Amino acid sequence: MKVLAFDTSNRPMSVALLNDDQVVAKQTTATQLNHSVQLMPTISALMAEQGWRPQDLDRVVVADGPGSYTGLRIAVTTAKTLAATLSLELVGVSSLAVIAAGAPATEQLISPIFDARNTQLYAGVYRLIDGQLTSVVADQHTDIASWQTTLHQLGEPVTLIGETSRYQTTLDEALGDQVTYVSGDANLPDAGRLGLLARHLPPVQDVDQFIPNYLRLSPAEAQWAAAHPGEKHTDYVEEV
Amino acid sequence: MKVLAFDTSNRPMSVALLNDDQVVAKQTTATQLNHSVQLMPTISALMAEQGWRPQDLDRVVVADGPGSYTGLRIAVTTAKTLAATLSLELVGVSSLAVIAAGAPATEQLISPIFDARNTQLYAGVYRLIDGQLTSVVADQHTDIASWQTTLHQLGEPVTLIGETSRYQTTLDEALGDQVTYVSGDANLPDAGRLGLLARHLPPVQDVDQFIPNYLRLSPAEAQWAAAHPGEKHTDYVEEV
Repeated sequence: MKVLAFDTSNRPMSVALLNDDQVVAKQTTATQLNHSVQLMPTISALMAEQGWRPQDLDRVVVADGPGSYTGLRIAVTTAKTLAATLSLELVGVSSLAVIAAGAPATEQLISPIFDARNTQLYAGVYRLIDGQLTSVVADQHTDIASWQTTLHQLGEPVTLIGETSRYQTTLDEALGDQVTYVSGDANLPDAGRLGLLARHLPPVQDVDQFIPNYLRLSPAEAQWAAAHPGEKHTDYVEEV
Repeated sequence: MKVLAFDTSNRPMSVALLNDDQVVAKQTTATQLNHSVQLMPTISALMAEQGWRPQDLDRVVVADGPGSYTGLRIAVTTAKTLAATLSLELVGVSSLAVIAAGAPATEQLISPIFDARNTQLYAGVYRLIDGQLTSVVADQHTDIASWQTTLHQLGEPVTLIGETSRYQTTLDEALGDQVTYVSGDANLPDAGRLGLLARHLPPVQDVDQFIPNYLRLSPAEAQWAAAHPGEKHTDYVEEV
């Protein structure tokens, strides 16, 4: 099975090709590039290098959130378009799980984090159980004070990973030795790991209905919700 | 400091760009490509994506062996050419150290391995001491029976990493629980790690004199040595 996996959910971009469980090529950029400009050329270049044609692909795997609105829309739209036009299986994987999978093999709790500005963050808690990354506390949009309480209540050591730098002092002061961090590169998403995480996940049933897991309302949705109390925010887009 | 790092010492190819200690882009291919055809275009594409010009580079880091003769010649020749033409610092790092650096953070002994066909292998033993990868048993060209004895004599747990698959049964039978393995991707070289390993190494003094660490004679050199007993094999190439 030939698999294309990519993650543009945050500032880094990562693209990988897998042959079953074997990562055959991968590229990761850590700096802010223009994902909408870079994603397809990077996919094309990696595939050309391997002599893979689009019709050789069997499955596309995408990191489906949480993360940047724009990054997620680019990733999910590209994945849906490829899945629909090439009749590929489509699998979505939590962007936080992709980061958690980069932690050194440990049975310790792992908390992946994306910085969401101000005091906000996206975070979850995972544990590697029998080699499978398992969600312990669901991915969520939260603030640093609440997340600190959540980690404290777990009452056991936690490895923090991802965009942790801005919160490190706060967490260290509150939680001391309970928290440790990983260094450098391990904090970046790796689409090879993304492709491997998808191995045991079912493909999306209806490709057209597949949407990112933003885990919070967009500013426009939040505005609409405030102006329409009591109505479902999914009614925000008017059917025409 | 802008750093270009690459490793084509074996079947995989890995290229990375670093800004000081920060990996900004990296690409790794696991399948056999033609390194001589792929290396420069991959370097150019990653640099173009970041908006880096050749004259922006400060240092080139190369995995300088052991490994495939051809792969090493391509890597070292490319690195020397770039260093000479762009006046860059040049740093060589053991290809086995690059693999060892992929082991999960542990204070356990780490033995990186490259399969050298028949019963032969390239191997070394390293340990992470205060976060620094330190050589415990020097990189060497050896055979599996001798290497098994070396590991046995160390008398403590060893993590094997790299091209271990062909020797796994033999080592398990001989050493049992003393040896463990890492899975998947962690066995591939990562030029991001290569660039980081070079941080504390001195640049090469004389770029022109820089040569790969083959750790064994080439077939032609071996033939010459057999025909010229008692002479230094470095006299193999006649001065003209």
